[in-house]
Amino acid sequence: MATPISLGLDFGTESVRAILVDASGRQLSIATSDYAHGQITQRLPGSNQALPPRYALQSPRDWIESAAIATCAAIAEAGISKADLVGIGVDFTSCTMLPTTRDGKPLCELDAFKQVPLAWPKLWKHHGAIDQTERMNRIAKSREEPFLKRYGGTIGLEWFFPKMLETIEHAPQVAAAAEVWLEAGDWFVWQFVGGPAESLTRSTCQAGYKAMWSVADGYPSTDYLMEVHPELARAAVECLPGVMRSPGERAGVLTFAMAERFGLKVGTPVSTAIIDAHAAVPGVGAAEPGTLVMVLGTSSCHMLNSTVLAEIPGVAGIVDGGILPGMFGYETGQAAVGDAFAWLRRLLGLESFDSIAAASRQLPPGAEGVRCLDWMNGCRTPLMNGALRGAFTGLGLEHGPQHLYLALMEASAFGLRWIVELLHDGGVPIDRLVATGGLPHHNRAIVEVYADVLGTEIEIHPSTQGPAIGAAVLGMIAAGQEASGFQTVIEAAAAMASVRDGKQDIFYPRSDRTRLYDSLYHNYRRLAAVTASQANQPGDARATS
Amino acid sequence: MATPISLGLDFGTESVRAILVDASGRQLSIATSDYAHGQITQRLPGSNQALPPRYALQSPRDWIESAAIATCAAIAEAGISKADLVGIGVDFTSCTMLPTTRDGKPLCELDAFKQVPLAWPKLWKHHGAIDQTERMNRIAKSREEPFLKRYGGTIGLEWFFPKMLETIEHAPQVAAAAEVWLEAGDWFVWQFVGGPAESLTRSTCQAGYKAMWSVADGYPSTDYLMEVHPELARAAVECLPGVMRSPGERAGVLTFAMAERFGLKVGTPVSTAIIDAHAAVPGVGAAEPGTLVMVLGTSSCHMLNSTVLAEIPGVAGIVDGGILPGMFGYETGQAAVGDAFAWLRRLLGLESFDSIAAASRQLPPGAEGVRCLDWMNGCRTPLMNGALRGAFTGLGLEHGPQHLYLALMEASAFGLRWIVELLHDGGVPIDRLVATGGLPHHNRAIVEVYADVLGTEIEIHPSTQGPAIGAAVLGMIAAGQEASGFQTVIEAAAAMASVRDGKQDIFYPRSDRTRLYDSLYHNYRRLAAVTASQANQPGDARATS
Repeated sequence: MATPISLGLDFGTESVRAILVDASGRQLSIATSDYAHGQITQRLPGSNQALPPRYALQSPRDWIESAAIATCAAIAEAGISKADLVGIGVDFTSCTMLPTTRDGKPLCELDAFKQVPLAWPKLWKHHGAIDQTERMNRIAKSREEPFLKRYGGTIGLEWFFPKMLETIEHAPQVAAAAEVWLEAGDWFVWQFVGGPAESLTRSTCQAGYKAMWSVADGYPSTDYLMEVHPELARAAVECLPGVMRSPGERAGVLTFAMAERFGLKVGTPVSTAIIDAHAAVPGVGAAEPGTLVMVLGTSSCHMLNSTVLAEIPGVAGIVDGGILPGMFGYETGQAAVGDAFAWLRRLLGLESFDSIAAASRQLPPGAEGVRCLDWMNGCRTPLMNGALRGAFTGLGLEHGPQHLYLALMEASAFGLRWIVELLHDGGVPIDRLVATGGLPHHNRAIVEVYADVLGTEIEIHPSTQGPAIGAAVLGMIAAGQEASGFQTVIEAAAAMASVRDGKQDIFYPRSDRTRLYDSLYHNYRRLAAVTASQANQPGDARATS
Repeated sequence: MATPISLGLDFGTESVRAILVDASGRQLSIATSDYAHGQITQRLPGSNQALPPRYALQSPRDWIESAAIATCAAIAEAGISKADLVGIGVDFTSCTMLPTTRDGKPLCELDAFKQVPLAWPKLWKHHGAIDQTERMNRIAKSREEPFLKRYGGTIGLEWFFPKMLETIEHAPQVAAAAEVWLEAGDWFVWQFVGGPAESLTRSTCQAGYKAMWSVADGYPSTDYLMEVHPELARAAVECLPGVMRSPGERAGVLTFAMAERFGLKVGTPVSTAIIDAHAAVPGVGAAEPGTLVMVLGTSSCHMLNSTVLAEIPGVAGIVDGGILPGMFGYETGQAAVGDAFAWLRRLLGLESFDSIAAASRQLPPGAEGVRCLDWMNGCRTPLMNGALRGAFTGLGLEHGPQHLYLALMEASAFGLRWIVELLHDGGVPIDRLVATGGLPHHNRAIVEVYADVLGTEIEIHPSTQGPAIGAAVLGMIAAGQEASGFQTVIEAAAAMASVRDGKQDIFYPRSDRTRLYDSLYHNYRRLAAVTASQANQPGDARATS
């Protein structure tokens, strides 16, 4: 029998990657396809109407088309037979979500709603629900809702229910027509395996981290949702059909139509979806407790498995078995990392940071007085406030682009140190830091600054495809032990995704800089505290809003 | 007899301008010459040694050479005979100052001190005396020194005595060799008219605004200076020889050597120097009380003549007859205006702001949430703290260069409104705002924003050469009534510098924007207050200092 092969489909913000990995960990091929419409932030396809600020939408057709292109390309490149493919895993950005009809048709594809922005899938970074999030938090706090403790006391701006409520309040005709609300990852898996809405598979990972769901309590109570908005309570009861399954559990098998379209075999097992960042944990072979896996990309997501359960204010998600079975999964995040660097690069009119990298490296810690808050897309952990905005302070005529570049790296590193301290002080031990995602490979300088600021060594997993490999690991598990040879996901992760000896990069802290960063970190914390408290003053609202 | 002609020499930060104006106000010619070494901020001429941050020096040879080039060019262009020139006026940046020997030789031209930075003239914007200024202020306040009231309660970082003290403390060998300390404008006039140090002319304008001197009390008391530093007290007694004269009073007549070098007539009368900004008041023909004359350039300086004497905390200089005889002269300033825009332009990698001007004009007041403090060179009025630094806050991924550009214009305008309110609330009436200097002609957008934020119309004086014309007016007065035909400086200013009807631009506020700016101004004041109080916390010192 040939070595079993799994397909991982990794849906990112701009593109989807298809990877083929065999049971020995050999990567046979990888192919990427950009979404035709990318992030929809300016206007809907075929429309001249400008979208409101903070909107970020996507097209569901793009997901299917790009995934089909990437899969066909990967199969062709690997030169394998579709019969050798034993399973398919899917990871997706989250909370990216959409309303559909009972048979899974996205509302944005109906003629009636083509030109209604809130009928379209909302991308994870869509920030239209500021008011809704604020109200859901206020009411949840006043009622002391038990779910709050699992999320550091705060519902996130990017989560599932605020996004639903935004549509209920701002596009009630869309909300009335919505028969199913679901995560994009769950929608894609549903398209792959077919079947009625009642039996569609929902991922415990997405539900646990983005929809305040838990095994014990389910979704938030109807009483609470009623107090927020009666329509939200009704939709939560009527429009969330399906069955909860964990990543790696089989959601179903590939339909004839999709097998044809993707050039795959009918009946291939398909795994329950997982959040893209979380897929990186099996994807870098980090199955043991105490390893913080940091997926550094457009934004950053940090995952930690632990045997300890602790409630830590500001930690966005603590889900029992939410990342891997048998451990408590902790999730934290930074809302803008790659995004913030790309923004700064454009702002400074630079083609790349190469031209100022040398000048930036020669600066002492602290960028000669320039300080930064990297909240250009809000602050996820620990402030959980998407409405916050970034800053550069301490600016003088003597400063150039290299100072802003270093200051932004330092802000990102200080934000990470804040998170690590929060977990540590909360009683959750961290023994090891592993970085993955695209950023550490494009921008090694930032990992250097991270190590200096944290005073800890940081490993860079050599694969730039942690989430995609993780999806392939889960696809292998969904295939079942007979087909794959693996009994547990930990076993599969170790075999398919461990670093080969000596292949990983390790960044070591430079102790002279670490010492200086210690006091600069406290300045950063003070700047963060003052800025956050200023932003929360009512008089500080924008003149234009 | 031919119409009398006067030469105005206007020494700026980067170059000197020579202008020839006749008694009827006709401008016969103008010529500019850049200083060979410009601002010396990186390294001394002939040295590889980097200067410390915040240093800004100049070369005295540059002043003489550039002035000679510009004067010869102006005379040649006008095609006049040197015999028709009845007087010479000089305005200069201030406090730009230097140590010399008893015969006026700059110490930086002695072999022993060529490579000692603090032997060179310190440009007005040199900010090396932060510690010294802080100490002089602390001691002056503890002793309740009477001069403080005239300067809004604070000695400025850019002033004469802190600059002296910096050299005393950091280059004692230079201080020991200094036989004369003086303003650059006074030094230049001394070079022009010759004579011994005992009778050199010092300008009451420079002394009054930058050296805490007044007619009634003279310089600060020896007791006070002793408590600051015994060497400072000694130098104040021994090294400030000369006679105080007001701008327009004759300092002397041109020496043979200088007449030869400049192509002028021996014995031409030379006026006492005036600060460049202050020269703009006669230079725009604004001799009446209640007109705020704003010289907008690298930095901004605002001058107001008033019949009212009021002590206003934060107003940097109130000098009896300090601008024009018979009125109280008020001076306020913003430390970085043109400088801050040039810095932002370079930072953003732009050739000019033209490419983003249209996008910036389309933004609503408040730059969609981006806010700025334009303290990139410290804050002059009203905080009098050169160590403060600027900021951009409210930054999001949705913002581009046009947002930063508008935010900087708004910060500059809010700073101006703060100053106008301070004077008004202090009981000093302002009836009219006149802008002059280079900036309003290069960047009309900023005057537009000023008018919107202040809710007041702003006239732009059509001449870009207000200070140079003012210097020429003073040169005419120094020539005496017989030669010039004028009895008073007010008469000469009216004849030589008034705006011809219909020739000035007036910017009117747009009321819809003015309304919005009202609440944004209060946000700005809050941001300024928080930032200033943060900066004053001891823990906030730079890691590198």
